[in-house]
Order: sequence, then structure tokens, then C-alpha cells
Amino acid sequence: MAMTGVLRPGHVQIRVLDMEASLTHYIERMGLLETDRDDQGRVYLKGWDEHDWFSVVLRPADTPGMDFTAFKVDSVETLNRLEQSLKDFGCEITRLPAGDLKHCGERVSFISPMGHTFELFAQKDYIGNGLGNINPHPWREDLKGMKVHRFDHCLLYGDDLDGAVKLFTEVLGFQQTEKVVVGPGGSVQIASFLTCGMKAHDLALIRHEEKGKLHHVSFLLRSWEEVLHAADIMGRYKIPIDIGPTRHGITRGRTIYFFDPSGNRNETFCDSYDWYPDHPEITWTEDELGGAIFYHDQQLNERFLSVVT
Amino acid sequence: MAMTGVLRPGHVQIRVLDMEASLTHYIERMGLLETDRDDQGRVYLKGWDEHDWFSVVLRPADTPGMDFTAFKVDSVETLNRLEQSLKDFGCEITRLPAGDLKHCGERVSFISPMGHTFELFAQKDYIGNGLGNINPHPWREDLKGMKVHRFDHCLLYGDDLDGAVKLFTEVLGFQQTEKVVVGPGGSVQIASFLTCGMKAHDLALIRHEEKGKLHHVSFLLRSWEEVLHAADIMGRYKIPIDIGPTRHGITRGRTIYFFDPSGNRNETFCDSYDWYPDHPEITWTEDELGGAIFYHDQQLNERFLSVVT
Amino acid sequence: MAMTGVLRPGHVQIRVLDMEASLTHYIERMGLLETDRDDQGRVYLKGWDEHDWFSVVLRPADTPGMDFTAFKVDSVETLNRLEQSLKDFGCEITRLPAGDLKHCGERVSFISPMGHTFELFAQKDYIGNGLGNINPHPWREDLKGMKVHRFDHCLLYGDDLDGAVKLFTEVLGFQQTEKVVVGPGGSVQIASFLTCGMKAHDLALIRHEEKGKLHHVSFLLRSWEEVLHAADIMGRYKIPIDIGPTRHGITRGRTIYFFDPSGNRNETFCDSYDWYPDHPEITWTEDELGGAIFYHDQQLNERFLSVVT
Amino acid sequence: MAMTGVLRPGHVQIRVLDMEASLTHYIERMGLLETDRDDQGRVYLKGWDEHDWFSVVLRPADTPGMDFTAFKVDSVETLNRLEQSLKDFGCEITRLPAGDLKHCGERVSFISPMGHTFELFAQKDYIGNGLGNINPHPWREDLKGMKVHRFDHCLLYGDDLDGAVKLFTEVLGFQQTEKVVVGPGGSVQIASFLTCGMKAHDLALIRHEEKGKLHHVSFLLRSWEEVLHAADIMGRYKIPIDIGPTRHGITRGRTIYFFDPSGNRNETFCDSYDWYPDHPEITWTEDELGGAIFYHDQQLNERFLSVVT
Repeated sequence: MAMTGVLRPGHVQIRVLDMEASLTHYIERMGLLETDRDDQGRVYLKGWDEHDWFSVVLRPADTPGMDFTAFKVDSVETLNRLEQSLKDFGCEITRLPAGDLKHCGERVSFISPMGHTFELFAQKDYIGNGLGNINPHPWREDLKGMKVHRFDHCLLYGDDLDGAVKLFTEVLGFQQTEKVVVGPGGSVQIASFLTCGMKAHDLALIRHEEKGKLHHVSFLLRSWEEVLHAADIMGRYKIPIDIGPTRHGITRGRTIYFFDPSGNRNETFCDSYDWYPDHPEITWTEDELGGAIFYHDQQLNERFLSVVT
Repeated sequence: MAMTGVLRPGHVQIRVLDMEASLTHYIERMGLLETDRDDQGRVYLKGWDEHDWFSVVLRPADTPGMDFTAFKVDSVETLNRLEQSLKDFGCEITRLPAGDLKHCGERVSFISPMGHTFELFAQKDYIGNGLGNINPHPWREDLKGMKVHRFDHCLLYGDDLDGAVKLFTEVLGFQQTEKVVVGPGGSVQIASFLTCGMKAHDLALIRHEEKGKLHHVSFLLRSWEEVLHAADIMGRYKIPIDIGPTRHGITRGRTIYFFDPSGNRNETFCDSYDWYPDHPEITWTEDELGGAIFYHDQQLNERFLSVVT
Repeated sequence: MAMTGVLRPGHVQIRVLDMEASLTHYIERMGLLETDRDDQGRVYLKGWDEHDWFSVVLRPADTPGMDFTAFKVDSVETLNRLEQSLKDFGCEITRLPAGDLKHCGERVSFISPMGHTFELFAQKDYIGNGLGNINPHPWREDLKGMKVHRFDHCLLYGDDLDGAVKLFTEVLGFQQTEKVVVGPGGSVQIASFLTCGMKAHDLALIRHEEKGKLHHVSFLLRSWEEVLHAADIMGRYKIPIDIGPTRHGITRGRTIYFFDPSGNRNETFCDSYDWYPDHPEITWTEDELGGAIFYHDQQLNERFLSVVT
Repeated sequence: MAMTGVLRPGHVQIRVLDMEASLTHYIERMGLLETDRDDQGRVYLKGWDEHDWFSVVLRPADTPGMDFTAFKVDSVETLNRLEQSLKDFGCEITRLPAGDLKHCGERVSFISPMGHTFELFAQKDYIGNGLGNINPHPWREDLKGMKVHRFDHCLLYGDDLDGAVKLFTEVLGFQQTEKVVVGPGGSVQIASFLTCGMKAHDLALIRHEEKGKLHHVSFLLRSWEEVLHAADIMGRYKIPIDIGPTRHGITRGRTIYFFDPSGNRNETFCDSYDWYPDHPEITWTEDELGGAIFYHDQQLNERFLSVVT
């Protein structure tokens, strides 16, 4: 098969301070669908066009941030093989049993050199996208708010970027699609955009003094008109916007950044390019960093660069 | 790596009756870029966002239609391996030397059970998408007409659909994303949509009494607004439209079909869904065939179904 | 004031065969809002962004078609003045009392030379667009289906086009923005597009052998994306489409035509140009009639031209 | 006729510091068309869909800002009548001869209570929108950059807002569509949006300590996709953006603000609502002023509020 190994971002567990406010945000405003709850008080959500049982888990907590994010792999064999490769790379591994997250099979958990907890899993219950698989309509009419299509990726901040890039590319088979370099001769890489398939990014990593921080959790929309609609929802409900609507140079996406009620940053975006393994890596340099991040106004934004959870 | 084996549609060679009229059509109206010509009178073209040297070859001929279409594979090793697999499957293979098509490496040519000539190749010269790989702008300003982004796929008509599906799925590692079935209990499959990556289709096949016919060559746009713009170009230059703008049930695409000056059908479309190997296959049945093909008016269109080259 | 005299299309009364099916169509699918009913079984509707109490009246009947359409004028003085002008022109006038249509003041009814019943009125109760007039949100979140913004205009078929144009331009102060001419030297006008404000058309008239026929009732959308959404609603609910999505040459609108359950044709469209009284009249000639009507495929459509109610 | 008196904004004369840089900005980037120059070094421009000879005049100067802006009236009779009304109101009038601006008839110039020079004129040479008036295509293919459709309106800052509103509504027949009030009980009006036709605003006025300042000159686009394209042009050419893409609460427009090379603020926007004289005036209060101005992020922007030329 052409798509093998690590398939895609599978889920992210986000810490929230006020579950009711968070459910209003993620369900009523963003349009995620609730699919289950568990006895730890966690709520399971998914974007409408995802087929697996959940992709976002909200956990009640005292501090915001990300507990972990996971990638789905194509088979149990791949899961076992990659577990060994991670051990060989020097990662400490935890095997989490099936059912530890409801509807999810065994998970292989490890901590990346940047301090984030990642997981791999091969199995999750199928729930479907609500259209059915026989003569489906091409769209759903019953969605709320921003109608986000799927959990798309995370952007994470941490210290050992070089180590994390090495792990994802050499052990897990990701490719680096784009990078940002600074310093004399571009000698220091400060950002990496990584794909495990045909998306411009399935994971983004930024060098930062502190380990294990979350910059944002991103959700896919399908058009610039849907980006406007998302912004209109934010205006109507006074959801704090960080920046946007605007466009990235990096990945070409059209985007808005905003905050959930706990202060975790979300992104809704549409339309980057399709990646293939024989495409060239793109490099962004310090002098064009403004346009790399926000193409329209070409200016760096202190809050965008520094606020993390 | 996550994307392996057959990567994507690499090129299509189209027979055209009047080269000058065809160049006006494909370059001035559709926005393909000319990248070379050869001593057989063939003209090489590409969509702006493709990185390889060409994806469309126009060959002067007395009858319209498709000479062949090719898929790029990830390496010479894969090329050799798949050549053997094709032989084992029973295909007669022709090895075409590097340079037979300019800028293209060796090609493995074979005839599918439906009578079409397909090729595999592993190497093609890199020309880039014109944005550069250092601090690229996310768009090109110098494009013409419909500004098509890439050659996306072919839809082909032929007799032995079952055999062709078997070849593409069992030998070349494609997956069937959607299919159409008719007859008692849906016992006869008449259409297959096949992917080698994350696109809803990289190849579409329709059962038809005659071998080796071309229904259309498809090109990607990025938004419904770009579909409107393409239609406005067709109106301005009286390019004959077959149907559209409209939307498919199958693959969800927003689309227009029209004809090149030789009578070959083209498609410009945008926005189907992302496929993953663990997604369910979608089945369309005879009673909903109108909406499967054209979701808006839900009606079959005799010309669309029967005119091929 | 800069806008005086006849202001805009105010309402249309449509005959429907099955009221329940019609309410599903006009309310659930098109997104009109019900604002009242009366003891004749009539149902009053409005588009969300209209401020007057109603703009569409559905009347239960045995045959489809239009009973009448009305224009709002700026004052009772104007109403009285235009009544006299219509009498002077030779029209037979009927004064309908306030309340004959609920929430509507006195109406001056007359029959145009093409056989249609038109009305003028100066007063209708104010209901608002639901956004309020203090710090309004710029959009409504609670709308259904196609979310049509307003009743926009009617296109009517009848015999004495020249007489009707004379009446609307000389008596009621309309301007002809566009016209279609056929025959030797363009000697016969077959279509007239008339405005009473800054819209490209507030009324459209086509020459036809039979008096008093309705071609379509048109509703405004705000973007090509909304036109797609309207088409997606039609596909989902198998509402019969006549033609579209497509674009007109005449008025430049992007459009879809479809039928209500009684066989009355509806249009949803967006985005023509702004008209000013010093703009030139546009003329369409017989040889370009295909593109005048449907710009994309440039072809006349027999059903579109001949089916009326 | 339904549209009488003052018809629309007719032109604006902008002071620019560097004509070559300004021509690049207004022609190559914004897409205005040059239609003439005069012996004062002034350059005459128009948006493609305007029919009169020019709507923007660039004058070489040492300071940026607006010299004057003008409204077209429906006839010489109206011009003479309004001249007398302005005199009666207490304005000092200057009659400028035909040809003082090339292609333009006599102009009646007056200074408003806020200190800006306004003009009225009844006649300007016709140049057309380049589509022709016989079987026109509904769009132009030869446009550059942002492809702005027309000069739409000015927003001006000055001291005597009450006096200016009185002049425009009582003398020139404008209506106030929206207003902003602050202070105890909303006792102080600080902004007025005024129409002379069916647009949500043909002129906007803001209370400010200094007389006669320009906040921005606005140009019309036709869709949110065109707003994105305009922003992409700004990114590509590093045109300084003030804010946007975003949306206003006031007038509902989708918009971007940016600066010309002289520091004059420009706006490109699309899609506000249609106004009729019987629509209610909208009031914005101090507590919702953030959302009134920028609906998405609901925050006031110091630079947007205070930088004028």
C-alpha cells in the first residue's frame, strides 16, 4: 500500500479548567461532536468528517495545556515495530492498555526530546462520519458553529528541537516539509514542519527554552468562506482572537488563531498544499520570518510567538 | 516513510488534432505552462504547482484520445519490483528508455485489462513550482486563464473493469475508495475510484463495451471561486461545456466538464476529501446513480455517460 | 432624498397546490421566515434581511402561478400621484383597503399591458430583520436551508412587452437597464430588464404569446459560496433544478433555477452590478442570446425558455 | 425617477509624495486604470467598473491627505438648485469651470463644517467600463493586482460632526444609516454613516479635534475571495497593512485597511447591505464599539483610530 507506517494525527488530550465552558466552546462554537465520556470526567470529541471514535479528549485539570497527542499507525505489527525502534532510539516507553482511553486499543507512549508525551496506536473503534457508506450525501446539514472537519495537527514548543526532528524523521518515518533557520548562515533551526502523509504538516515543532509546551491545536476547515464563518462565530460569542483571518507563508494555510476558555490556543485553517516525498524541503530565513508566519502583514506578533500553555 | 510505492499520477499523453488550437486551449485558457517540445512535435506541459518537468504531453495525431498515462513510483527499486509483479500478474511489459520522453527516466509500460496503456516511472527532472524553496510566496501572480494547479487524474472507459481493479489493487497497491454497482443485488460493478495516496481518486475506471477509451483528463483547482472563474473563461472563449459547474456525490468534488478543441473531455474540479487506508469504501447503487454523478440535479446526462475519445 | 418614488419590489402572491409541501419548500429549504397567516389560508413569509412584515404570500389554489406582485413607494402622496398617472395612462385601477393583506396599507392594483396584476403600496408594518437596530450582529445564526436574504424580483411573460415597458418607464419612473432584441436589425424587443433603484433589475419582462404568465420568482443570496450551498440543499432534498449553478450574461448574476412543489420556478442568485441612472442601457442581440442568458455554456435551454406558470 | 438628486461619490483628489511609487501602488497593485494626466502633473484614474472618465485624481504634493471629494448629481438643474441650498445653509461656494479637472463639467465647491472641501458636479465624460454595451462579457480579464471595482467612499475626520451631518441630510438629501454615540446616555455622536442611494454608506464622518483630515479612501471588491486576493497582493509587495482581513459590525463589510506610499490609508472591502429610505437607522453604543468597528476580534485598534492624513 502507498500509505503505510504512521498514518495521521489520531488524538490530542487537552487540559481544561472549566468543563462546561469548554464543552460550549468545542461543541457549540467549534462544532466538534461529543462521542463519549469516562469516569475520569474526560469528554471525547471528534470532527464530523473523522471516522474514528474520537480525536479530542478534554480532561478537567487545574492548569491548561496538552497531556499528550497520538498518531495512528497502520497495524499492530507497525505499532510493535515502532515501539522497538523508539526503544532503540533511547526513548522510555509506556504501554497503555486497550480501553485506558475508551474505544482505543493499546497505546505506546513516549516522551520526545522536547518534553512532550506522544503516543502511537493501531486501533480505534469506528464510528463513521455520519454520512454513511452507501450513497452518502457529500455534506452534513446538522452541524454547529464553525463546523470543523477534523483535528488536524498540534504545534508544540520545547527545547531539544534537533532531537525531536531526528526522532520523527529517522524513527517514525516523517519527512520535514518546511523549516525555519536563524543565526549566522542560518545555522540554528528554530522550527520544523513534519508530515507523515500528504499533508503539508501533521506536526509542527518550535525551539523554546521550556520543555513540553503547547502552542496550538489545529482544526481543518474547507474554504476561505468557512474561515470567515469561523471568525463570525468568534465575533458573535466574543471568543478571544489571537490573530486572523490571515494567511501563512509557511504551508500556505488561511487561518485564524483564538483561545479556548482555559487559555489553550486553537487554530482553524484551510487549504495548504499536497505534499509528496519527492518534493523539496522549504527553508525560511530570519529576514523573511514575518511573512513566513503571517504573509499578509509580514509582521511578527509577540503574543503569537510567546504565549503557550 | 509513510508514502511509499506508487506515489501519484505522473503524466498523460493526449492526442490532439490541431496543435495550435490545443496550445491555446491548454496554455492560454487552462493555464498549463509549456516546459519543452520534442522532435516528434510533442509539447510538454505542467500545472504551476507541480515540481516535475511535465505532466501533460500533447501529441499531434489524426484521432483524439489518450496514448497512455503514467504513475510515478518512489524509487528505481520499486519500479523494478513492480515490473516483476506486473509480469507475474500476466501483463506484457515494455521498458522504455530514459529520454524517450524528455526529462523522464526509464518507463515500464503495460496494458491494463481494460485496454489502456499505463506506465510507471521513478525519475523525472525537477523544475519546481516557480515559487522557489527559500522563503517562497504562497502563490504565483503570473498565471493565465483557469490557473489549473496540477494534472490530477484520468477517468477511463473499458471492458474488463474487474481485471483492472484487481491489477491496481493487488499488484500496484491502490485502494478502491468508491464504487458503483448495478444489477440484481448490486452484483455488477460498473465504476471504480482508486487511490494510491490520500486523494479520493488517482484513477477512475468505468465499465464500457469498448476497450481503451478516455472519458476525461482532470485538473485540480483550489476553490469553488476558482471553479466559477474557470467557467467564466469557458464562457468568454466559448469553450464547449459538457456539464457544470456542479458537484459530484462521488468524491464530493465541485466540478466542470468541457471539451478541448480535439473533442477530448477535460475536467476542472476542487475539493474532495482526504482518504486514509482505514477509511471505509463507499458504495453507490443504481437507484441513486443520478446523485452519485451529479449531486445537484440528481439526473443522468446521456452525453456525459456516453461520449468518449 | 436620493431614493424617491417607487422604492422596490414589495411582495408577490404565489399560487400553490399543496400548502404543506410549499411551506416545507419555502421555509425549511429556502429559509424564508413565516410571519403570519390569514383566514383565506394564505401564509405570509419574508426573507431574513427584509424589514417589512412580509414579501411572499402563498395562496392555496388549484393552479400554480402568480396572483400579483407589488412595489413599495416612498409615501402615500406618491401612491396617490402614481394612481392618477396610471389612470391617465389608461389603466383600470382597483383600490384595495388596508388590511386586505394583513399588515399592509392600501394598495393600488392595476393590470399591465402584458396581463399581469401589479400593485403599489406605501405602508407595511415594520418587523425588522431580527438583528435589532442597536449594536446589531452583522448576521443571523438561526436560519434554515438556503438562507435567502430577500425576495428580489419577478420575471414575467406576456404579450404586449412594448406597452408594459412604456408603462413602467414613463409612468412609474423605472429605467430599462438591459434589453434583448431580435429580428431584422434588432427591430423586435423580446426582453426588458427594469430597475427602480440601484439594482440591475427589479422586474424582468419577456415577450410571449400568452398574457399574464410567471417565469420565476427570484431570491437574493450574498455569495457564490451561498449559491453552492443552495444547490447542495436542492441535491439533498431532490428539489428539481431547471439549470445551474451558472452565470447570466444579462445582469452578470450567478444563479440557480429550480421548481417549487407546485411547479412555480424559483431563482436564487447573487451579485449583479450596481446601477445608476446615468449608466448606459445594455443591448443583447439574437446571435449572442445563448451567452446573454447562460454565459458559461452559451446555449439556449428549451425548458428554461418555455415553461411558465 | 427613483434615483434623483445626489447620485454617488464621483471622485476624490489625493495628495501623494512620490508619483511613481503612487502609480505603482494605485495601478499595478490596486488595479485602477489610468485615463489621463494634466499639466499640473495630476494623474486621473478609475476603477474598471466605473463608467465616468475618472474617480481618483493623484496630485503631487509635499504632504499627504485629501484635497477634496465630489458627488455627482443627476442634472445641471440639481447642481444649480443645490448650490443655492448650500448658500442658504451658509456655505461659501466656489464655482469651478468645466475642464478645471479634465473631462469634468462645472463643479460647485464648498467647505463642510468639519473642514473638508466637497464638490458637486453634474457632468463628466463617459468612458465606459471596457465591456461595451452590446453583448458585454460580465467580467474583464485584463485587470491587475487587486482589481478594485470602483472608488466607493471616503471616511473623514473633523470637528463639527453635528454641523456636517445637518448639511448632508438637510441640504443634500443624504440619510444617516448608522451612527456611533458615546458619553452619558449616548449623548455625544462621534460617527455618522451617510448614504445618498442604496449603499450602506457613501460617506463616513468621525468627530476629531482637528479639522479636515482623511482617515481612508475606500474601494469596492465583490467577494471575500477578492479580499483574500487583495491581502495576498499586500503580502507579496509588502504593502503595509493597518488591519484585516476582518469584518465590520458597522455596515457589515469584509475589509482590509492598508497604506499607500504616502501614508494615506486605503480600504478594500466587499459586501455590505442594501439600504432603503424606510430602513431604520442603526445605533452603536460605547460599550460595543470594539465589535462595531472590528467584529471579529471586538477590539479597538489605536493606530486605526488615530492615524489620519
